[in-house]
Amino acid sequence: MGQTLTEKILDDHLVEGELETGEEIGIEIDQVLTQDTTGTLVWLQFEALGLDEVQTELAAQYCDHQTYQFDFKNTDDHRFLRSAAGTFGAYFSRPGNGICHNVHKENFAAPGKTLLGSDSHTPTPGGLGQLAIGSGGLDVAVAMGGGPYYIEMPEVVNVRLEGELPAWATAKDVILEMLRRLSVKGGVGKIFEYTGPGVESLSVPERTTITNMGTELGATSSVFPTDEQTEDYLARQGREDEFVDIGPDEDADYDDQIVIDLSDLEPLIAEPSMPDKVVPVREVAGQDVDQVMIGSCTNGGYEDILPSAKMLEGRSIEPDTEMIVAPGSKKASEMLAREGWTAEMMAAGVNYSEATCGACIGIGHVPSSDSVSLRTFNRNFEGRSGIEDDNVYLCSPEVATAAAIKGEIVDPRDLADELGDLEDPGFELPDAYEGAENDIITPDDPVDDELVKGPNIGDVPLKDELDAHLEGPTLLKMPDNITTDHIIPATQDILMYRSNIPKLSEFTLSRVDEDFAQRALDSDGGFLVAGENYGQGSSREHAALCPMYLGVEGVLAQSFARIHKANLFNFGLIPLEIDAEDYEQIEEGDNIEIVDDVAEAVRSGQEEFTVRVNDDWELTAELDASERERQILADGGKLSHTKKQAEDGSGAPADD
Amino acid sequence: MGQTLTEKILDDHLVEGELETGEEIGIEIDQVLTQDTTGTLVWLQFEALGLDEVQTELAAQYCDHQTYQFDFKNTDDHRFLRSAAGTFGAYFSRPGNGICHNVHKENFAAPGKTLLGSDSHTPTPGGLGQLAIGSGGLDVAVAMGGGPYYIEMPEVVNVRLEGELPAWATAKDVILEMLRRLSVKGGVGKIFEYTGPGVESLSVPERTTITNMGTELGATSSVFPTDEQTEDYLARQGREDEFVDIGPDEDADYDDQIVIDLSDLEPLIAEPSMPDKVVPVREVAGQDVDQVMIGSCTNGGYEDILPSAKMLEGRSIEPDTEMIVAPGSKKASEMLAREGWTAEMMAAGVNYSEATCGACIGIGHVPSSDSVSLRTFNRNFEGRSGIEDDNVYLCSPEVATAAAIKGEIVDPRDLADELGDLEDPGFELPDAYEGAENDIITPDDPVDDELVKGPNIGDVPLKDELDAHLEGPTLLKMPDNITTDHIIPATQDILMYRSNIPKLSEFTLSRVDEDFAQRALDSDGGFLVAGENYGQGSSREHAALCPMYLGVEGVLAQSFARIHKANLFNFGLIPLEIDAEDYEQIEEGDNIEIVDDVAEAVRSGQEEFTVRVNDDWELTAELDASERERQILADGGKLSHTKKQAEDGSGAPADD
Repeated sequence: MGQTLTEKILDDHLVEGELETGEEIGIEIDQVLTQDTTGTLVWLQFEALGLDEVQTELAAQYCDHQTYQFDFKNTDDHRFLRSAAGTFGAYFSRPGNGICHNVHKENFAAPGKTLLGSDSHTPTPGGLGQLAIGSGGLDVAVAMGGGPYYIEMPEVVNVRLEGELPAWATAKDVILEMLRRLSVKGGVGKIFEYTGPGVESLSVPERTTITNMGTELGATSSVFPTDEQTEDYLARQGREDEFVDIGPDEDADYDDQIVIDLSDLEPLIAEPSMPDKVVPVREVAGQDVDQVMIGSCTNGGYEDILPSAKMLEGRSIEPDTEMIVAPGSKKASEMLAREGWTAEMMAAGVNYSEATCGACIGIGHVPSSDSVSLRTFNRNFEGRSGIEDDNVYLCSPEVATAAAIKGEIVDPRDLADELGDLEDPGFELPDAYEGAENDIITPDDPVDDELVKGPNIGDVPLKDELDAHLEGPTLLKMPDNITTDHIIPATQDILMYRSNIPKLSEFTLSRVDEDFAQRALDSDGGFLVAGENYGQGSSREHAALCPMYLGVEGVLAQSFARIHKANLFNFGLIPLEIDAEDYEQIEEGDNIEIVDDVAEAVRSGQEEFTVRVNDDWELTAELDASERERQILADGGKLSHTKKQAEDGSGAPADD
Repeated sequence: MGQTLTEKILDDHLVEGELETGEEIGIEIDQVLTQDTTGTLVWLQFEALGLDEVQTELAAQYCDHQTYQFDFKNTDDHRFLRSAAGTFGAYFSRPGNGICHNVHKENFAAPGKTLLGSDSHTPTPGGLGQLAIGSGGLDVAVAMGGGPYYIEMPEVVNVRLEGELPAWATAKDVILEMLRRLSVKGGVGKIFEYTGPGVESLSVPERTTITNMGTELGATSSVFPTDEQTEDYLARQGREDEFVDIGPDEDADYDDQIVIDLSDLEPLIAEPSMPDKVVPVREVAGQDVDQVMIGSCTNGGYEDILPSAKMLEGRSIEPDTEMIVAPGSKKASEMLAREGWTAEMMAAGVNYSEATCGACIGIGHVPSSDSVSLRTFNRNFEGRSGIEDDNVYLCSPEVATAAAIKGEIVDPRDLADELGDLEDPGFELPDAYEGAENDIITPDDPVDDELVKGPNIGDVPLKDELDAHLEGPTLLKMPDNITTDHIIPATQDILMYRSNIPKLSEFTLSRVDEDFAQRALDSDGGFLVAGENYGQGSSREHAALCPMYLGVEGVLAQSFARIHKANLFNFGLIPLEIDAEDYEQIEEGDNIEIVDDVAEAVRSGQEEFTVRVNDDWELTAELDASERERQILADGGKLSHTKKQAEDGSGAPADD
């Protein structure tokens, strides 16, 4: 039986497990990327590992989300990230150099390699045959420390492309069609592998628009085979030597297949406020538009902005419509400026921005009240633009530009008919991608050799191995359904301390008990007791990290939310299940002692633990954990576990 | 006796008073400008006047401070401002089109005219022989309503320029030299009139750098005569027909004279954190620099950025120094892009921003902690950059660019020696200023014909004429030295409601008594009682406007701060002085009744008023007011007064 491209790359990188759908596998990571909102914690965690340098082939740190630097904390973050990249051996992309996915695609994305990134659109370079996956920051830190990345083997679904795109239909319409058919849940647990005769008609930047927005399907990743288009693209980027001819076997066995005939596609648009509310543009034509934005990691490339510039040449945008262009990379921006397109767009009335994620994540150019915004971005979740009750449509640059010219939503084919002299600008690659040569600082020539931490950047604590003896007071007793928002509130006034764990920890469980954090710190150890479904809500790692910082040793709950339980393992807190009767009996302040040799019991697979309360009565608590989770917990959490593995195993240099 | 240029322009526009230093004069305003942080209230006040359209020759509304639109309130403000401009007949400069002073200079500034603007750097077009003055928003609203602008006739000080600037010295160094000599208080109550043989060596953009930053001297305005340079500049802007030959008489009599020999100047720099802490650049050479910024209304023109671009051509900025360029206008930006300079700067490592005031007012690109920022801006007051304890230096674009190349402060003459191939780029005007043709919406072709108010934009109340009978409770009794910060706190969480008086009023005097606002609203009239120095602090008009909105009729205080007292007149609240003994006797809640026919007494010049307290005892209170202040107060405040004048006098159309 032949292999899919996904299986080939995974096989090449397999460290643990077997490539059976649903089974946990561990894979080696070749490249990692981080950005500025997730990167600070990644590097603090990496620092806590105690390694001298990153262990992956390549690590790249981008500054793209907070490039406007509204607050000194943003600028301090950027300075810290530069210092971390310099200290630990990563590439550093300066603020203003563009969006991680765009800059990574231009400079580093390589066929056949694995990429792990602390950003959900990490799968973008799948368009070049790279297997790229988004993850939490801790996973990236661990990968940089040389640890494998663990994941359940996804289903591999074949998307067979036939035909060629007709005039005015674009790659964006391919992925919008996927969303129309499959919905935003349609890709969960799946990797989409694009094949078929239609593939060769799509250039790499078109492919990356598709793989980028596979994230909105909920997919683990999306990937294209490599071919002449890939080789050509890499050559234009001056990286032809990185080309690898890679694709699925002819008899590859897929879990499912979808067929899209490109020639059937027409300009599509996602209505507010979900990326899968996709309809033909003609169905919503006539809708007034207040704001048009072109950019983002989906459609912010040179090749995406160029068609818009060509459409605007010699024209002007409607005066009651604002149009903002934010290039995805400075390289794209510099090339467009050099060729005169930037001036052309400005002349038409465009507000031309620095290269940034910006508005895509609600940072800048927030729509006005009760207005309509058309964007070439990937998400239009309600409120994401920065205002509640927003009306954000998602579409191609061509559809967005047509709307800016007309002041309302219009199918560009109809606008072309109306104007008479408007032609489909087509999709064109530059002869050579050149520019922004001074905006990536290489690990060979760093400007910093030690970490620079502003006052809002603290250290991340590392936990010791689990003790044989665990004992301490019940620091807090909580009811059912405590959420991660209860544990660490997600309001901006608190989350601004995300890089400062000592400060952030002061807010731990403050919504339940204002005095908790101080009490926990004073107590030097102890337990949390909770009812059913403890830790429901977001995947926020801080909800485990902050209690760990405060000295909490474990949580006794009637049941745990799945992701939070994984986070408790990752940060070395033992999650024990207790029954309702015992839960009722425990009082806040009660002394808890785990009678067994905890470290030994956890490592050996013991499931039942005897807990003595107030040296007075006993209960039985259960530890439900995989072998891997047990080793992580016993080692003091995932960071400590990775550190230990690096010291024991690969001989990776540690500096302590 | 001959006239100064200032006297000539004032004489031409004189409506009231005589041109004697220190005397109050009223002048006619030809042009007004407003920007987005002050403009909303200006237009709400204009709306309250009830006029159909602006009465000045020209009004221009710019969107320059909050162009990043971090919050829907910013974007709503811009939308409201566009609608106000359309409704009332003003030019509207779209967000992203640049800084008010730059765009006004390019498009509208005209020799011999008067300009009033709700921004402190309004004097910029003095470089073209326009008499331009910054003021509060109410003054601008009144001027737009056809009312004169009142001001004490300033001293006119002659600045005689001799010689020519040597290599690497610039217009910025001229104004830095003025600040070095005179300090930030040196221009208070003065207009600086530049003359002498050195004038002709300075082009208009150089002159406007000087007049712009006269504001930092505390000057009322600064002005240059017109000459061939002015004519040439206007011609390059396509406005040669607006040239007027205007200058002082040869025997003009000045209040004072200063002589600057341009040939003695060298590159200067203002150290943190005051614009007058000026030293030669060489004295601080070697200081590491983290951030360099070029832009602002002082040095953000095409002609300011061009030298920087030339210096950067083929070079790169130091990797540990960030350099951001924010053009002052989109026209400048478009021209630089068209000529290839933008790409050149990007290639050197510059983060190229949209046209905005931005960082100059702490909006974006806030320096990192404990860092040094070199800026071509006009102010470096501590904390203005957005971070406390900042270290901001002010200098010319040439000095800033040299620092970015070297990574530390360096006299560009020394850098030129060091590099060997770096030449003074000189100062060059483009053949023609062309671009951004679609970014000013004219009053002849507006896109809105009615006001569009987002949820954070309220109406401004207009007060009725003063009643004959004033009576009400003592709503609050306050001690000495109540500041405008007590009356309306200036914190961001409160001032964000600056365009929403009903909402903002809820915070009135909340720092003194949380229940005050509700009590005042419920009472439907009443008085404030205070000790000495009531209303000290800022010139914030809201400190009078909000009590007025809540129905407060007047303030009885032992004494008033000067500016706040003027604001009380302007918003129709009677400020009465009482003595210490009477102050002691009045209790909160006491009924206050002014026994006289208040309206008649105010108009007729009566100084002593009998106040009956609780129908039990009487005191005598004093009204110290000029004839003009009395009429304003009696009419219900400056807005009502202006409205009445428009209705009675000029026959300006009113729509109610």
